[in-house]
Amino acid sequence: MVLLRQEIGDVLREQRQQQSRTLREVSAAARVSLGYLSEVERGQKEASSELLASICGALDLPLSRVLSQVSEKVAVAERIETRLTALPTVGTRRPLVSAA
Amino acid sequence: MVLLRQEIGDVLREQRQQQSRTLREVSAAARVSLGYLSEVERGQKEASSELLASICGALDLPLSRVLSQVSEKVAVAERIETRLTALPTVGTRRPLVSAA
Repeated sequence: MVLLRQEIGDVLREQRQQQSRTLREVSAAARVSLGYLSEVERGQKEASSELLASICGALDLPLSRVLSQVSEKVAVAERIETRLTALPTVGTRRPLVSAA
Repeated sequence: MVLLRQEIGDVLREQRQQQSRTLREVSAAARVSLGYLSEVERGQKEASSELLASICGALDLPLSRVLSQVSEKVAVAERIETRLTALPTVGTRRPLVSAA
């Protein structure tokens, strides 16, 4: 299952690192705790809409831009998931011809 | 402030209505309570990533497609917000020349 919070976390971390900023700097600018931002970036916590807006503001990024990047990442993850689901699973593969 | 949960709620409601399905039908298919889905659609509750995935599954929509629609809506809301912020506010307008 593709989880939104993980893809949002990845995008936020990438954007912060591209700006060469630390968790401490961005969490202070966004007025969230460092631990909270770290958990959001690792996809371990759902960011509330208000705090997500605040983090985007601290990164000087429109929420729409973050979401369009998240949407692209989710599309990639969905394609991978679809391919994996289509693969036969070793050990649970059933014979083509029934033994009956 | 543009809030993600409100834009997600709008997209989920539009998609459900386009499919001519009731809250009851979609909430049963998604295995969430009717009240929960209704609150999510009205932007009153943050959907967890797992339940959002489940609602998208019930609507037979990839999460990526929902997010790309949400991203477009957020972009429109951001443009409106920017214009409103740029407007002078009656009552708090300050004179161009200081009285000092």
